[in-house]
Amino acid sequence: MPLTPDQIAEIEAARANPRQTLRAVSEGMEAHLYRAMPVLDHGFVRVIDYMGDDSAIVQAARVSYGAGTKHVQNDEGLIRYLMRHWHSTPFEMCELKLHVKLPVFVARQWIRHRTANVNEYSARYSILDREFYIPDPAQLAAQSTVNNQGRGEVLAGEESARVLAMLKSDAAQMYDHYEAMLSQDGQQGLARELARMNLPMNIYTQWYWKVDLHNLFHFLRLRADPHAQYEIRVYAEAIAACVRDWVPLAFGAFEDYRMGGVTLSTKAIAVLKRRLAGETVTQEASGMSKGEWREFVEVWG
Amino acid sequence: MPLTPDQIAEIEAARANPRQTLRAVSEGMEAHLYRAMPVLDHGFVRVIDYMGDDSAIVQAARVSYGAGTKHVQNDEGLIRYLMRHWHSTPFEMCELKLHVKLPVFVARQWIRHRTANVNEYSARYSILDREFYIPDPAQLAAQSTVNNQGRGEVLAGEESARVLAMLKSDAAQMYDHYEAMLSQDGQQGLARELARMNLPMNIYTQWYWKVDLHNLFHFLRLRADPHAQYEIRVYAEAIAACVRDWVPLAFGAFEDYRMGGVTLSTKAIAVLKRRLAGETVTQEASGMSKGEWREFVEVWG
Amino acid sequence: MPLTPDQIAEIEAARANPRQTLRAVSEGMEAHLYRAMPVLDHGFVRVIDYMGDDSAIVQAARVSYGAGTKHVQNDEGLIRYLMRHWHSTPFEMCELKLHVKLPVFVARQWIRHRTANVNEYSARYSILDREFYIPDPAQLAAQSTVNNQGRGEVLAGEESARVLAMLKSDAAQMYDHYEAMLSQDGQQGLARELARMNLPMNIYTQWYWKVDLHNLFHFLRLRADPHAQYEIRVYAEAIAACVRDWVPLAFGAFEDYRMGGVTLSTKAIAVLKRRLAGETVTQEASGMSKGEWREFVEVWG
Amino acid sequence: MPLTPDQIAEIEAARANPRQTLRAVSEGMEAHLYRAMPVLDHGFVRVIDYMGDDSAIVQAARVSYGAGTKHVQNDEGLIRYLMRHWHSTPFEMCELKLHVKLPVFVARQWIRHRTANVNEYSARYSILDREFYIPDPAQLAAQSTVNNQGRGEVLAGEESARVLAMLKSDAAQMYDHYEAMLSQDGQQGLARELARMNLPMNIYTQWYWKVDLHNLFHFLRLRADPHAQYEIRVYAEAIAACVRDWVPLAFGAFEDYRMGGVTLSTKAIAVLKRRLAGETVTQEASGMSKGEWREFVEVWG
Repeated sequence: MPLTPDQIAEIEAARANPRQTLRAVSEGMEAHLYRAMPVLDHGFVRVIDYMGDDSAIVQAARVSYGAGTKHVQNDEGLIRYLMRHWHSTPFEMCELKLHVKLPVFVARQWIRHRTANVNEYSARYSILDREFYIPDPAQLAAQSTVNNQGRGEVLAGEESARVLAMLKSDAAQMYDHYEAMLSQDGQQGLARELARMNLPMNIYTQWYWKVDLHNLFHFLRLRADPHAQYEIRVYAEAIAACVRDWVPLAFGAFEDYRMGGVTLSTKAIAVLKRRLAGETVTQEASGMSKGEWREFVEVWG
Repeated sequence: MPLTPDQIAEIEAARANPRQTLRAVSEGMEAHLYRAMPVLDHGFVRVIDYMGDDSAIVQAARVSYGAGTKHVQNDEGLIRYLMRHWHSTPFEMCELKLHVKLPVFVARQWIRHRTANVNEYSARYSILDREFYIPDPAQLAAQSTVNNQGRGEVLAGEESARVLAMLKSDAAQMYDHYEAMLSQDGQQGLARELARMNLPMNIYTQWYWKVDLHNLFHFLRLRADPHAQYEIRVYAEAIAACVRDWVPLAFGAFEDYRMGGVTLSTKAIAVLKRRLAGETVTQEASGMSKGEWREFVEVWG
Repeated sequence: MPLTPDQIAEIEAARANPRQTLRAVSEGMEAHLYRAMPVLDHGFVRVIDYMGDDSAIVQAARVSYGAGTKHVQNDEGLIRYLMRHWHSTPFEMCELKLHVKLPVFVARQWIRHRTANVNEYSARYSILDREFYIPDPAQLAAQSTVNNQGRGEVLAGEESARVLAMLKSDAAQMYDHYEAMLSQDGQQGLARELARMNLPMNIYTQWYWKVDLHNLFHFLRLRADPHAQYEIRVYAEAIAACVRDWVPLAFGAFEDYRMGGVTLSTKAIAVLKRRLAGETVTQEASGMSKGEWREFVEVWG
Repeated sequence: MPLTPDQIAEIEAARANPRQTLRAVSEGMEAHLYRAMPVLDHGFVRVIDYMGDDSAIVQAARVSYGAGTKHVQNDEGLIRYLMRHWHSTPFEMCELKLHVKLPVFVARQWIRHRTANVNEYSARYSILDREFYIPDPAQLAAQSTVNNQGRGEVLAGEESARVLAMLKSDAAQMYDHYEAMLSQDGQQGLARELARMNLPMNIYTQWYWKVDLHNLFHFLRLRADPHAQYEIRVYAEAIAACVRDWVPLAFGAFEDYRMGGVTLSTKAIAVLKRRLAGETVTQEASGMSKGEWREFVEVWG
């Protein structure tokens, strides 16, 4: 478990003092506030703050569309309409702030989502803790043979053990050397901003990450996807579980139209229409490349 | 007053139901929530929601700088340090959502601040109200003679009256024609998305606008500045009054380092150093252009 | 035609001086440079500069994916793969700079695309020209009866004539008053930043607009779409014609996967699969709302 | 030297084929195109493409300010005026694309500048090279005693040698293990996306980075600053040297107003005015904190 007793006490203290507010409140999210959802071996995701709820999305849309939105009977219908037609600005009216502890190689993928606010722990300023991600053997997989960017079979026992032993002893040694370089005991002690370069990328870092709901959905669509690397996917799934409790209507629409949806090209539409008309269409006749056809068949048989 | 009795009743209803939350609460901002601060003749600014307070800035900074921040004795010192050294990310951890009613020509300036979320009333979808900004005579000024982009003397009585009469009758006529074009009484009725093109730019629109505190400070520095156009400056000042109540420590630092601060060029530093050493420096000897020198002398005499 | 003889001479002069460069060159785009494509009655789009070509997209992708990309046989296949899998960053490596003259109500829609750079003509600083968009009678349509946000039938002759007369005389009168207020002949002359508020939103403005290819494709998908308002769609179509000549492979992929593509929800996928299996599915059995079903049937019958 | 003979040949080939263009050309930048400027022990910066020059900035400003800009006599004066008054949008009209090879811990700082386009080499997809940043002994400094975030004295000989030996042997061992885990020789071979986590943060990565001139200046102001970490500062300095050749007028204004400028707070202005009036002001009487006063005295004595 990634939390110390002190940290747990801090969380309980933060949760012990409800206050009054006139703002929109999401009961589903209040239950999550400050609590750490464990992810990987030492990581976590904690909700630190949120702004808005399903009603805030509807309210913003009604500003835009005025009385015209009244013909949509209810909030759920309007939210689904907005999601279906890519009207993204009302979803931007909700905001989420998270505290995340994560391995550096995951943080490097994550930060590529630029439309967010970040405060990361500075290893230039402070000393990192001795905490490294060591995969569970069930996650130690071979390089995929069909996809340059993915995993195949789980490693067999002996190879798996060899890899784990290397990861563990290397992490321990690198951190020992990090401490040895920093030490001011009988020597000057290397600057932190230099010593950190010797640490491997499975060391844990942490940050505050703040994002609006539209951009969060974009993150979740890419990172909670089966093609995402497992180590970032588990973070996305933990966040998704919170979002479902926070804005259940918006999350439902997101699941239906984005997570569970597919995009068809002009060629794919044409093939489906021919199939619906009873025709049998081959890859050659489809106009698609082999790769495109393989992906098409995965969905449509 | 820009609000109808219905709107006032709605605001009172929204304020009548405090709820419990575990989130950070700013009492100063709770007092503002939903209330409309009148701006210009028919405009307003209303706080719809906020995230975070002064402590949220400090908390985010301490994630970044770890135990290292403990040497800064208190929250105010840390916030001032962050502002002084342009460490902007902790300020991004606070967020504000406003409902603003404003003339279109003001909205066109405002929207140039890109790092914000916006839902504007759609005149493609709905019909705009008959509300126009007509300046107070005290604001009806002549073109500046020294600045291509600014105002000079207030217009004298007769000219002022002529201008006001034109603005009023033109607005009335244009709106009459807008209605006449839209009308489906005995005719088809022009599409809203076309009819709107006949409206002048002093008609009021409205939007929800959401922004983080760092970008809001940037907006305020430019738009609450004496060089900003009066009609946007009064909005910036209304917002600034809320921000002061919301995050008093951050606002204090902003006032000291940004609003009240000046930036000196290499040349200006050199001139001041020579002056401090007792030397008299002329424009020619300063290396500055005439315009630069004039601006320098405005501050330093 | 929106250009003066002076402007035409300027364009010819700019085109008369080819220079040598080592940068990527797109012959298709060189043919467009500086030339004004007329749009609406007084508007235009001109390409001022561009960065990159189809090869620049491929080159950036190969930096990301290294030798791994060699299994994709050719540039077109790789570009289609990137588009299909929403790998947007290589498309961001191309950049386009346009000079656009457009009515203010179109500019207000356009500016909502935030990820772009803009320099707009300042009516605070300078005086706008007497040029207004007056629709062609073929574009003067009634409000749609099925869509709050759209047009229906073209207005019949008499109503159309009435509308055109109003638009023309109002524009003329407002501009006359604009000039009267600005005039310093026998009076002080109102400040430009104030006088502009009396102008209607069909007056023309102009700007430089610079955007990367990924964000430009997003703009084109929304604004070259049949649901976009005609007056912005014609600009999007003019730009699309240039982009096709600039990066033909990327544009082809964009047309196939984005412009001509559709996104299916989980429910829509299920319905199509049932239909492919020979089942007849009704709206009630589909789980879709009436609106969703109507949109589904428009594509799939 | 970081380039292989093959790479040098590629660069020469790219430079061997000048083509004709009608676009703005900067001769100063043409001389840099594709060439690698060495940075650190294995890194480099290469200009891949650029858009615009000093004239492009002026041209965009003249669109905004119209004929009004003619009172500024020349391009340099106008560019300096824009920089002095924080009119940033004309500078956004120039764009630069770089190819950079840099250690991962530098890349992690760099990527925090969000307003840029990036394509990074993917260690999920491809195998990283055996190249690590090993500091020159002259850069191996102790932790600063006055600044939590900085370096002090250079390490003395024996400690320096110990640190270098550790960095070298650790890098070699980690890379050996990386290869051992990836190897498919007699074993399945760990997935690349997992094996990379064992690599230390001084390994080199590379990316294409594209940014507009306004945001590049912001990057340079922070990263070419003496307080920036040496290992990113040398990259910023290499880039700055190119920018000076590309847009000499804009770069001159940037140096004068940003790099060599200082920002004074309200309190600092007051102290300077009192000093100019002949008064001696102490820290206590200044209203500044001790830290603020120390920074003030560093500049003003």
